[in-house]
Amino acid sequence: TEPPQNLHGLSPAQFALLKQKTLSAKSHAYCPYSRFPVGACLLAAPPQATAAAAEPATYITGANVENASYPTGICAERTALAKAVTDGHRAFAALAVAADTETPASPCGMCRQFVREFCAADMPVFMFDREGGCVVVTLGELLPMSFGPEQLLGREGGERA
Amino acid sequence: TEPPQNLHGLSPAQFALLKQKTLSAKSHAYCPYSRFPVGACLLAAPPQATAAAAEPATYITGANVENASYPTGICAERTALAKAVTDGHRAFAALAVAADTETPASPCGMCRQFVREFCAADMPVFMFDREGGCVVVTLGELLPMSFGPEQLLGREGGERA
Amino acid sequence: TEPPQNLHGLSPAQFALLKQKTLSAKSHAYCPYSRFPVGACLLAAPPQATAAAAEPATYITGANVENASYPTGICAERTALAKAVTDGHRAFAALAVAADTETPASPCGMCRQFVREFCAADMPVFMFDREGGCVVVTLGELLPMSFGPEQLLGREGGERA
Amino acid sequence: TEPPQNLHGLSPAQFALLKQKTLSAKSHAYCPYSRFPVGACLLAAPPQATAAAAEPATYITGANVENASYPTGICAERTALAKAVTDGHRAFAALAVAADTETPASPCGMCRQFVREFCAADMPVFMFDREGGCVVVTLGELLPMSFGPEQLLGREGGERA
Ligand SMILES: [Zn+2]
Ligand SMILES: [Zn+2]
Ligand SMILES: [Zn+2]
Ligand SMILES: [Zn+2]
Repeated sequence: TEPPQNLHGLSPAQFALLKQKTLSAKSHAYCPYSRFPVGACLLAAPPQATAAAAEPATYITGANVENASYPTGICAERTALAKAVTDGHRAFAALAVAADTETPASPCGMCRQFVREFCAADMPVFMFDREGGCVVVTLGELLPMSFGPEQLLGREGGERA
Repeated sequence: TEPPQNLHGLSPAQFALLKQKTLSAKSHAYCPYSRFPVGACLLAAPPQATAAAAEPATYITGANVENASYPTGICAERTALAKAVTDGHRAFAALAVAADTETPASPCGMCRQFVREFCAADMPVFMFDREGGCVVVTLGELLPMSFGPEQLLGREGGERA
Repeated sequence: TEPPQNLHGLSPAQFALLKQKTLSAKSHAYCPYSRFPVGACLLAAPPQATAAAAEPATYITGANVENASYPTGICAERTALAKAVTDGHRAFAALAVAADTETPASPCGMCRQFVREFCAADMPVFMFDREGGCVVVTLGELLPMSFGPEQLLGREGGERA
Repeated sequence: TEPPQNLHGLSPAQFALLKQKTLSAKSHAYCPYSRFPVGACLLAAPPQATAAAAEPATYITGANVENASYPTGICAERTALAKAVTDGHRAFAALAVAADTETPASPCGMCRQFVREFCAADMPVFMFDREGGCVVVTLGELLPMSFGPEQLLGREGGERA
């Protein structure tokens, strides 16, 4: 399968590694209820204005962790981001997600909302099918007119530091 | 404030009622944590092919119900839809949401996902600001490339009746 | 099947009605993923110090509403409480839940947390199996040492009105 | 502050390390909405019947990651467990949680439910206050009569492998 034409600033090597890590993350899923394993991977942006090429890139993976109480479970993308944020990352160059589907699976709305707190509207989201076929869009395309921190923080009486 | 030019099939009277119910639903919010009351209203589609004009329309409202454990809370749109679905409604002509914001607040990603299970991509979503100013888009515009029942049901080994 | 010996202040007629409404609420579930319908019913407490016997009791039902994105779904108990709260109820005399299980199904932890925001520790929770067999415990027994509003509100800098 | 008398099988050194990691995990929280940082730490059980003392213990930490859409956020305990499970851990010797509270903060119901999928009823849960004061109970005490995998898996027609 061919990589997308537009890698949104990633190098071919970064894309290849992101793809490999995302596909293999599926095997860490705990999904006895849906039997629908999903893998995810975030590429953390280098801190500040450091050149990406000069900086060792950090890849943080995740997979879905389901629960007998379905609403209590956590999707792959949110597992990856919760890991990344509590590891100190606050900016990201790309998100990728993979499922054993015929056409590339997209993040659910809850995950789009969760990553939107930290990720820019122009961050690419790479979506893989079971053969490794890929479609890429930006987060802004997946969650237009989004609800975010600006709506809540800095309001009168809503100061939060 | 002017209604949107495109009412997406609603009559002016239906739009006016939807707006009024959505704005007043805000007052039923329980939001001691965010102090951000949100109101929502669904207009249930008449069953089958009955003409909308001939059928008494059903409006189902909701508001946000927060919790000391923030992730346990429920947004206004999901309250309205959970009510509607357990009242037997399965098709909807419109969703509306209102918040005390300067510009119309949009549904969070989790709510877009929740309503997507039942609502068509061309269903209008009317969003109101604190003055009653309105913006309207379709659900498909708010949640493009969505993840839905088709991806899970009817899979090999995923039969669910 | 026999009612529990301790009805926790409900009259036999109230218990019978609560049971009937809870069992029949199961039929309103939307659960194509789990095929595990759950029904729930809240008995709203009469406002203020009005005697229960003198006041018409209000029963609010709910059922589970699942989603292709499993974590986005809502359980029966939370559907019922979100309805009740946005209808203006703030105090409850009983919660009941029913599932098609051999032994009475209990609320998941997320639902225990959600109802704890409004319900007293000594509120009874009636749990029914598929034959209508019943076990009753209090909310405090289901969620001991709970995390609640007291921990968050009224803190220094956490004023919320 | 004194450690609890009953360490539930942990060595004093393991408890000391668990405490230190849990308290310092708080500093990784992203909580601009609640301003209520929570830290959590899981002690993974050594695989199989290996003696704990002989095996290097694995500690996995987490913190709360909030979202402008409050219900979309993830608590500290769930962050830690989602990390641990997707790292391959399936059994745990202890969970610990810490908050800047006067009395030790307990896990919310949603987190009790999430960890119950993997953790035994007799697993200890250590809860710390802002001074490091500690209370310990078992998971079974925090979530009695719990709803778990047994209720869903292995049902007739509910086979999931
Ligand atoms: Zn998701
Ligand atoms: Zn929402
Ligand atoms: Zn539940
Ligand atoms: Zn929690």
